Amino acid sequence: MLLNTLLAVRRHSESLIDPLQPEDLGLQGMEDASPPKWHLAHTNWFFETFLLQPHLPGHQACDPRWSVLFNSYYEAVGARHPRPQRGLISRPGIDEVMRWRSDVDEGLSRLWESAEPTQIQLAELGLHHEQQHQELLLMDLLDGFSRQPLEPIYAPKSDFVAVKPPGEAKWLSCGGGLVAIGHQGVDADGGFHFDNEAPRHRLWLEAFALQDRLVTNSEYRAFMADGGYQRADLWMSEGWSHCQRQNWESPRYWRGEGPAWEWQEEFTLMGRQPLHPDAPVRHLSWFEADAFARWAGARLPSEGEWEIARLQHGEAMGQAHDHLWQWTSSPYRPYPGFQPAAGAIGEYNGKFMSSQFVLRGSCWLTPPGHGRDTYRNFYPPASRWMASGVRLAR
Amino acid sequence: MLLNTLLAVRRHSESLIDPLQPEDLGLQGMEDASPPKWHLAHTNWFFETFLLQPHLPGHQACDPRWSVLFNSYYEAVGARHPRPQRGLISRPGIDEVMRWRSDVDEGLSRLWESAEPTQIQLAELGLHHEQQHQELLLMDLLDGFSRQPLEPIYAPKSDFVAVKPPGEAKWLSCGGGLVAIGHQGVDADGGFHFDNEAPRHRLWLEAFALQDRLVTNSEYRAFMADGGYQRADLWMSEGWSHCQRQNWESPRYWRGEGPAWEWQEEFTLMGRQPLHPDAPVRHLSWFEADAFARWAGARLPSEGEWEIARLQHGEAMGQAHDHLWQWTSSPYRPYPGFQPAAGAIGEYNGKFMSSQFVLRGSCWLTPPGHGRDTYRNFYPPASRWMASGVRLAR
Amino acid sequence: MLLNTLLAVRRHSESLIDPLQPEDLGLQGMEDASPPKWHLAHTNWFFETFLLQPHLPGHQACDPRWSVLFNSYYEAVGARHPRPQRGLISRPGIDEVMRWRSDVDEGLSRLWESAEPTQIQLAELGLHHEQQHQELLLMDLLDGFSRQPLEPIYAPKSDFVAVKPPGEAKWLSCGGGLVAIGHQGVDADGGFHFDNEAPRHRLWLEAFALQDRLVTNSEYRAFMADGGYQRADLWMSEGWSHCQRQNWESPRYWRGEGPAWEWQEEFTLMGRQPLHPDAPVRHLSWFEADAFARWAGARLPSEGEWEIARLQHGEAMGQAHDHLWQWTSSPYRPYPGFQPAAGAIGEYNGKFMSSQFVLRGSCWLTPPGHGRDTYRNFYPPASRWMASGVRLAR
Amino acid sequence: MLLNTLLAVRRHSESLIDPLQPEDLGLQGMEDASPPKWHLAHTNWFFETFLLQPHLPGHQACDPRWSVLFNSYYEAVGARHPRPQRGLISRPGIDEVMRWRSDVDEGLSRLWESAEPTQIQLAELGLHHEQQHQELLLMDLLDGFSRQPLEPIYAPKSDFVAVKPPGEAKWLSCGGGLVAIGHQGVDADGGFHFDNEAPRHRLWLEAFALQDRLVTNSEYRAFMADGGYQRADLWMSEGWSHCQRQNWESPRYWRGEGPAWEWQEEFTLMGRQPLHPDAPVRHLSWFEADAFARWAGARLPSEGEWEIARLQHGEAMGQAHDHLWQWTSSPYRPYPGFQPAAGAIGEYNGKFMSSQFVLRGSCWLTPPGHGRDTYRNFYPPASRWMASGVRLAR
Repeated sequence: MLLNTLLAVRRHSESLIDPLQPEDLGLQGMEDASPPKWHLAHTNWFFETFLLQPHLPGHQACDPRWSVLFNSYYEAVGARHPRPQRGLISRPGIDEVMRWRSDVDEGLSRLWESAEPTQIQLAELGLHHEQQHQELLLMDLLDGFSRQPLEPIYAPKSDFVAVKPPGEAKWLSCGGGLVAIGHQGVDADGGFHFDNEAPRHRLWLEAFALQDRLVTNSEYRAFMADGGYQRADLWMSEGWSHCQRQNWESPRYWRGEGPAWEWQEEFTLMGRQPLHPDAPVRHLSWFEADAFARWAGARLPSEGEWEIARLQHGEAMGQAHDHLWQWTSSPYRPYPGFQPAAGAIGEYNGKFMSSQFVLRGSCWLTPPGHGRDTYRNFYPPASRWMASGVRLAR
Repeated sequence: MLLNTLLAVRRHSESLIDPLQPEDLGLQGMEDASPPKWHLAHTNWFFETFLLQPHLPGHQACDPRWSVLFNSYYEAVGARHPRPQRGLISRPGIDEVMRWRSDVDEGLSRLWESAEPTQIQLAELGLHHEQQHQELLLMDLLDGFSRQPLEPIYAPKSDFVAVKPPGEAKWLSCGGGLVAIGHQGVDADGGFHFDNEAPRHRLWLEAFALQDRLVTNSEYRAFMADGGYQRADLWMSEGWSHCQRQNWESPRYWRGEGPAWEWQEEFTLMGRQPLHPDAPVRHLSWFEADAFARWAGARLPSEGEWEIARLQHGEAMGQAHDHLWQWTSSPYRPYPGFQPAAGAIGEYNGKFMSSQFVLRGSCWLTPPGHGRDTYRNFYPPASRWMASGVRLAR
Repeated sequence: MLLNTLLAVRRHSESLIDPLQPEDLGLQGMEDASPPKWHLAHTNWFFETFLLQPHLPGHQACDPRWSVLFNSYYEAVGARHPRPQRGLISRPGIDEVMRWRSDVDEGLSRLWESAEPTQIQLAELGLHHEQQHQELLLMDLLDGFSRQPLEPIYAPKSDFVAVKPPGEAKWLSCGGGLVAIGHQGVDADGGFHFDNEAPRHRLWLEAFALQDRLVTNSEYRAFMADGGYQRADLWMSEGWSHCQRQNWESPRYWRGEGPAWEWQEEFTLMGRQPLHPDAPVRHLSWFEADAFARWAGARLPSEGEWEIARLQHGEAMGQAHDHLWQWTSSPYRPYPGFQPAAGAIGEYNGKFMSSQFVLRGSCWLTPPGHGRDTYRNFYPPASRWMASGVRLAR
Repeated sequence: MLLNTLLAVRRHSESLIDPLQPEDLGLQGMEDASPPKWHLAHTNWFFETFLLQPHLPGHQACDPRWSVLFNSYYEAVGARHPRPQRGLISRPGIDEVMRWRSDVDEGLSRLWESAEPTQIQLAELGLHHEQQHQELLLMDLLDGFSRQPLEPIYAPKSDFVAVKPPGEAKWLSCGGGLVAIGHQGVDADGGFHFDNEAPRHRLWLEAFALQDRLVTNSEYRAFMADGGYQRADLWMSEGWSHCQRQNWESPRYWRGEGPAWEWQEEFTLMGRQPLHPDAPVRHLSWFEADAFARWAGARLPSEGEWEIARLQHGEAMGQAHDHLWQWTSSPYRPYPGFQPAAGAIGEYNGKFMSSQFVLRGSCWLTPPGHGRDTYRNFYPPASRWMASGVRLAR
């Protein structure tokens, strides 16, 4: 990896706050989300903590209290500011954070002069970590903006245009049998992957079929009009309980008057927009995705099926990337033989492998070059603020 | 199935409350548990609602308000009394409940005279349902008794004696490859199974090994003494959060003074008893089982591995039944091709397939004849009141 | 005080559970209420703890764990079982509790043979304490029964018949000036009083008027029909928030279909009964009483006004006793010069003097001889399960 | 009132945010507090809603959604943004809010040209309202800053220096009898007062004494060292419960290591400062003030006593103003004959008259000219973030 690549990614993070007003920088709409300034500081903390402090002699680290503020969840590294209170961190101000980022840039440049391969690998992890937060920053911001009566607009052209032609979805038949999934490893293809994508391993699949595009708003509207949010028989018990307690009646950001299935608008990073019937439906919990699939007489694909279908059908499996993360039927668990990295970095993925589901693909907010067919994203089944969508299997 | 078999099971349920005092009948120690009287009434409601009301002309059903009180979770059947308030149902009194059970016995006898096969199948489901509640009644009672300073004794001889000889556990090697798990179906072996055990299906396993007995109290005590409850690195993030919020420091019912790893007693249905070092450790959450396995340099078996090991090793895989339900690494999800039964009965298992883990085997409270190698029990990963234990895999 | 008087009061307590079924004995409908068996045990604990243990040599006290179970709120006496979990105390059973009561009876009889005046005074406090719990036992039971779909009947004739003739209420004019309220003290009239009724003290009142009877159901229904539960302007802000969060739309036990102001039934200790238009409205929070008074163009009386009006008008001030406790506008605070008793007994009244309001009079559940014009009852302003009513002032 | 006076007060509000960084403007440390920007917008909303909209033809009001955002609690005026979510209002930005304030300034100037007396009175209410929020803004900011590890400094010289010479407090004896308290009314002295200070009315006081200064840090430290936070017998039951649940062990902003009674620092608007032993102790709940007084063998004064003592002793009653609001023993209730203003303005004070206690005096954050001897401030008894202190009575 070239230093310039890394620095370009870091510049991109900073450009994300250009359209914001100062008060937006501390906005935390809910416990699961973080303020924009926090994302910029946390990604910087990651490089300083795991790379510069241990490996760059003479690097002057930040105020130790900042480490507490910007440690997300690394127990091995020390104390952490409580997550629900990230919105209360008015200090350090953005200027100080940007200066800190600049110090770390400089440190990275110095380190690069004599960096060992393992250090480059850590830097590469930091780069992909920062890309994840670029996506998160915008999803979190959408959540925070959606809670405000003034419905702020983040930026023009900050939403995507679906590229799959409309019309009935086609079923892509896939042969089953003994297949292998997971990342090949660095030696095989030279590319980066997270620890949770490995090891590549065998599994048995029966023959199956996947749709060649994501479920659309108009398809989902039909589910709603048919009482999808009122029929307990379509839902997991746990999901039905969420649905009732939180009064779900549409995807998270639909807006309108009257019965929900008639709503015609959606809140987006471009503000309130008309709901396009052919665009893929988004911001659904796993429970809604699962209920929809049951209603449609289909099911969600397993993550193995998703990966194999992609292998067998390539681009014919439309909207696989750059649109929406796609819920699978697979609980997020370690692959057979999974080994987290040693030390605090091992907390990156491994400790979240309970009570979540895997999503595959990537979304319009995913930075270019960050997605992969073996990528395993994961969220709790009741989450709705992230850019999730549905692809049917049978 | 013979009518007498069914009636004998129903008599057994009733005998479970013999050692109790009247005030115990309404005891609900926590939201997840139900009072003894409620279990007796709910199992009766099941037969009346799904069998007698639709299929026995002239059957006089109970007061419709009782249906609300004793419906557990069947949305399709109508309204339900809130679960956390089952302990408030002082009426109907036990005499009325027993009279109702007797009416239903009579109805079942009348139905039997001309019952069709599908009705016998429903009755068989009712029988197995009632057996599940026999086990639950006692686990719930243990929870309720454990919350009382007087530490009531349920009955002498209500606990089990571990039959596996002590000493180091042996590793049973198991060949992997393409295997099949799940119930063969009624036609193949004539036996009953729940819908979630089917369909039988193929899966790929790499070679693995399982221990020939359950983890013991003394092995678990070593984990505790080594800081098992203080080391975040051993835990899933979600489990660590439970551990800290609820101050877990030992299995649910251990009792003692000083540091937990020195505690020498356990609360049981026989009251407070000395902890036997060779007895299998019990009343653990999945999170504790998972953390223990990680500490031990091993892992939990998948449910496929458990079932195949049992097939390959038979009785050599000790303590498979009649001791403790055994946590697996498998989230509770439908088998490929799973179809819930039509109608309300379809709510029996299918709607709970999220955010739970599978346990295999059976426990000392499981009624004779109720266990099976293909049996899939399931609980949320933070639950600790049921009779759970740990078997290691690698 | 004669020993026989005391024993008769204790027999009366025990007779209150005669109409109950065994499972009712442990019923705790909510955190604020206690089960019948607990009331019988707690009142016994009071005599044993404050009288027999310190003053009767050789008295064999109960199991020390029982002291934890049946201590209500006396911090100075030791640990207490958590109040919300009183419903979980299935042991000791009622038989053991009754035996304990009998032991204490015996102890009291022995003590009496040589009791000193201060001990008789303590016993008298115990008697009045037990009478308070007789009233509480039935109010708590009504709460617990009201939460059950079967709407149990406690006993016939367990409700009162209003004795004030119907028709428009009359305003009783009262002269103000420098007056004195509070109990005269034992020396003056030989009667018992609680510490919070003393010392008698002076206060200044402007002239005022009180109604000669309580507000009726039909008057309250007019408030409801006029949007009383929908108009924020009639309510204290804190009350409005309770009203909205808990969906108050009528007094606590009104029952019916359609809009609340048309409801025609009330749940009582006699089961569901027709609402009598002329009967005093009951089971209201202070917030409802205050909002009603504002709507009626009147106000609640202060406790001083209530006591002085009673002095000036005697029986002409109808329904002063034996119907409903009557909310006043007075926060429950110490009288000038108030001194709680020394020791644990001082916790009886003094430590509750914040965030509650005074009620005056007595109710149909108050045992004969227990009420007094100087009696200061008190409850938090959002409480509705006790026998409260409204009298207007201006 | 001169227009210039009003505009000067408004300028003062705006100057309060001069020392802040942009991210501080949206900081809401807890539900009870509001962000600085919100205070500036809400006080502006008050003038626009109650004065300009009804009385200035042609005034162009703000976006109606802003009215929802900046209405604090006026039910009669329309919907309100939920109080706990004021910290989420990142838009409108501070520039827009300042422009709006400028528009309202202009509107006020135009209105003034032909304002009627009732309009001037409303404007005067708005001025005093804005002054209240000046004080609140800084108390809320202190709360928000106190929750941040970096412990920001608001401004130098933003704290007060106690002017009462140290040494033993003196008791000021006060004659009792029939006295009168409350504001004289506009006609009598021409000064402004809030509706809750009226009507002036008679009351009877027994002779009493007040201390001539507030309780100091060193006096309060003696209470702490004597187990004040561990002795239930000193506390109201409700207060003891708060103390235990929230782990109170010192006044809100004390800081230090080891046992709390040895702590030597306090968090202030000037950052962390040494605790001066002679400075008045502050940021106490009513429960702590009440417990301290009991420990000291004294009591809190009633609000009548406070006002009469001030009348009888004048400046000899030191620290009456400009130091700390002083808890009284008086629940906040209406004076006899109290009438709230008609319309929405009537919600200003009247609807909060339950479950709060009165504080008298004023504090160092109170703007000059805002305090009065008849001023009735009020807070719930568990609140600690406002500038409260203690004066003893007997």
